Amino acid sequence: MRIVVALGGNALLKRGEPMTAENQLKNVKIAASTLAELAKEHELVIAHGNGPQVGLLALQAANYGSVEPYPLDVLGAESVGQIGYMIEQQMGNILPFSQKFATLLTQVEVDKDDPAFNEPTKFIGPVYSKEQAAKIQETRDFTFKADGEYYRRVVPSPLPKRIFEIEVIEMLIKAGVIVTCAGGGGIPTMYQEDGSLIGVEAVIDKDRTASLLAQEIKADALLVLTDVDSVYVEWGTANQKAIRSASPDTLGKLDFPDGSMGPKVEAAMEFANATGGRACIGSLDNAVAMLSGKAGTTVSTEVSQITYE
Amino acid sequence: MRIVVALGGNALLKRGEPMTAENQLKNVKIAASTLAELAKEHELVIAHGNGPQVGLLALQAANYGSVEPYPLDVLGAESVGQIGYMIEQQMGNILPFSQKFATLLTQVEVDKDDPAFNEPTKFIGPVYSKEQAAKIQETRDFTFKADGEYYRRVVPSPLPKRIFEIEVIEMLIKAGVIVTCAGGGGIPTMYQEDGSLIGVEAVIDKDRTASLLAQEIKADALLVLTDVDSVYVEWGTANQKAIRSASPDTLGKLDFPDGSMGPKVEAAMEFANATGGRACIGSLDNAVAMLSGKAGTTVSTEVSQITYE
Repeated sequence: MRIVVALGGNALLKRGEPMTAENQLKNVKIAASTLAELAKEHELVIAHGNGPQVGLLALQAANYGSVEPYPLDVLGAESVGQIGYMIEQQMGNILPFSQKFATLLTQVEVDKDDPAFNEPTKFIGPVYSKEQAAKIQETRDFTFKADGEYYRRVVPSPLPKRIFEIEVIEMLIKAGVIVTCAGGGGIPTMYQEDGSLIGVEAVIDKDRTASLLAQEIKADALLVLTDVDSVYVEWGTANQKAIRSASPDTLGKLDFPDGSMGPKVEAAMEFANATGGRACIGSLDNAVAMLSGKAGTTVSTEVSQITYE
Repeated sequence: MRIVVALGGNALLKRGEPMTAENQLKNVKIAASTLAELAKEHELVIAHGNGPQVGLLALQAANYGSVEPYPLDVLGAESVGQIGYMIEQQMGNILPFSQKFATLLTQVEVDKDDPAFNEPTKFIGPVYSKEQAAKIQETRDFTFKADGEYYRRVVPSPLPKRIFEIEVIEMLIKAGVIVTCAGGGGIPTMYQEDGSLIGVEAVIDKDRTASLLAQEIKADALLVLTDVDSVYVEWGTANQKAIRSASPDTLGKLDFPDGSMGPKVEAAMEFANATGGRACIGSLDNAVAMLSGKAGTTVSTEVSQITYE
C-alpha cells in the first residue's frame, strides 16, 4: 500500500514536557520505530506537524532584540529543517543502509481570501497558564485560546490549495524513497497581483495538507497520528465515547474543536470521500494496528454506520 | 553542462547589513536571477552557505532562557529550511512554472578524529567590534577570531566524508529538477560506537561539501560564489593581485586564510584534481562570465601557469 502519515507536532514535543532538543530527539526515536515498521511493508510519505516547534522559534526570534522576528513562513521552513532532519536520521538508524530518504521543503498555495485570515485557530508554541498568557499579551500582539487546561497562542490556518513539489514527491515515492515533506502543513504561500509567489504569515494545518497530498498521490490510506487514541464524542465529559469507525457523512454531523480534533476529522473525511480509501485517526504507537482497523478511528465510505469502542 | 554552485551565506546576508528576513529575501532575489540564468542552459545543483544565518539562530536560541539552545546540527538544519525555501521560491518566480525544484535536507558524515574539533576556524553569526566580542565572552563559551576589521564567532569545521542523500540528488538532477542541497555544508553527523548516526556540534564548510558533491555527481564545473570578485595574492596589501587562472598545483603553494578564502581554494583544487573539470571562484554577479573564463579565478589542471588580471 501507499500510505501518507500525518504525524502530530505534539507527538514529537509532548505537552508540558520541556521543549529541549534532547526531548524532541527522544520522541522522534519512538516515532521513527513505528514509522520504520510501516516503511518495511508499505510506500511511506511522512507529513509532520510543527506547532510546538514553530512556536518556540517564534518566541526565540521575538525575544532577541537586535533583529525583527522572521515571518511565520520562514520560521515554519526552519522548523521543517529541524524536525525533518531528526525524522530522517532516526529512521535511517533503524532501516537498512540501502533505504533512501528525501526530506523536502514544500511550498503550499493558500487563498488570499481564506476566512482563516480573519479568525486565527491554529495552536502554536508552548502551553501557558491563563496568567502567563495574559502577561505575554501585555507586550505582544499575540492571540491566545484555551487548549485543554492550558492556554496557547493561535495563528491563522488557511486551507491548502496546491502543493508545488507534488510531481517531485511522486517521482521519489515511485523510486522507493521514503519522503518526508509538507512539514508543518507546508510553507504557506500565495500569489501576488504581479504573479510572483510570496510567503504568508500563517500555519497551514498539517492534517489538511497531508490529506491533499494523499489525494494527489492516490494513497491507499491516510494515517493521522496524534497524542490521543481515537476520535471521541463528548470528549472530556463523563459520557465520552471512542469512535471505532464511521462514514464521512455520519462524522460530518458531529462537532469537534477547531485547531485540534476538528481539522483531523475534516482531513480524514475529505480523503475518504475523494478516494474511497481509509483514513485512520489515533495514537502514534497504534499506527500499525490502525491500518487493519484494530485501533484508532477509521473513516471510510465503506462504513455504513458509526460504531463505538 | 552539469554545474554545482556553492553560494556564500554572505552573498545572502551582506556583512554589516541588518540580518532581517527582508534583507535576506532582497539578496536571495538577486542571487536567484543569476542562478536562473545558469539553470536555463545547464543542469544546476545549488549548495548554499549559512554562516550568518546559523549564527543568528544560535544567538536567538542562546538568549531565550527557558530552553537550552539546540545544538549546531539542529540549528544548521533550521537555517537550511530558511535559506533553501527562499532560494526555491525566488527561482520559481523567474523560471517557467513547469520547472521542478527540490530543496533537500542533507546529512553529511564527518570523522570523529578530524583535527578541526580541536581548532575552530569557521565563522558564524554577525560581526562584532573587538569590545563587543569580549563582552559576549564574559557570559558565553564562544571563541572569536578577527574577520577583516570585525570579530566573529568561530566553530569547528570538519571535512565532509560522505553525503548520505547523494543517490537521491543524482536521480533528481537526471529528471531535470533544480536541486538545492548540502546547505550550510550539510548537516554534520557521525557514527557512534553502537553504529547509530548522530548530529555533531560543528559547521561543515559548504565549499568543501559542494566540491565533494560535484565530484560524486560528476559535475563539469564547480562555481564558488562569494562577495569578492577573485582569489587574490597579498590580499589587503598595496600589492594585491587578482588571480585569473591557475593550476591546482600552483595555487596549492600559496597561503590563504582559514575560514574564508582558504577552504574555497581547497575546494576548487580538490574538484579540479579529482575530475579534470573547472572550478571557478568569484562574485555572484559574474557567475555566467566565470563559466567562460571571463571573470573570477579559474582553477583547472589544463592551466599550466598562474595568470593575473
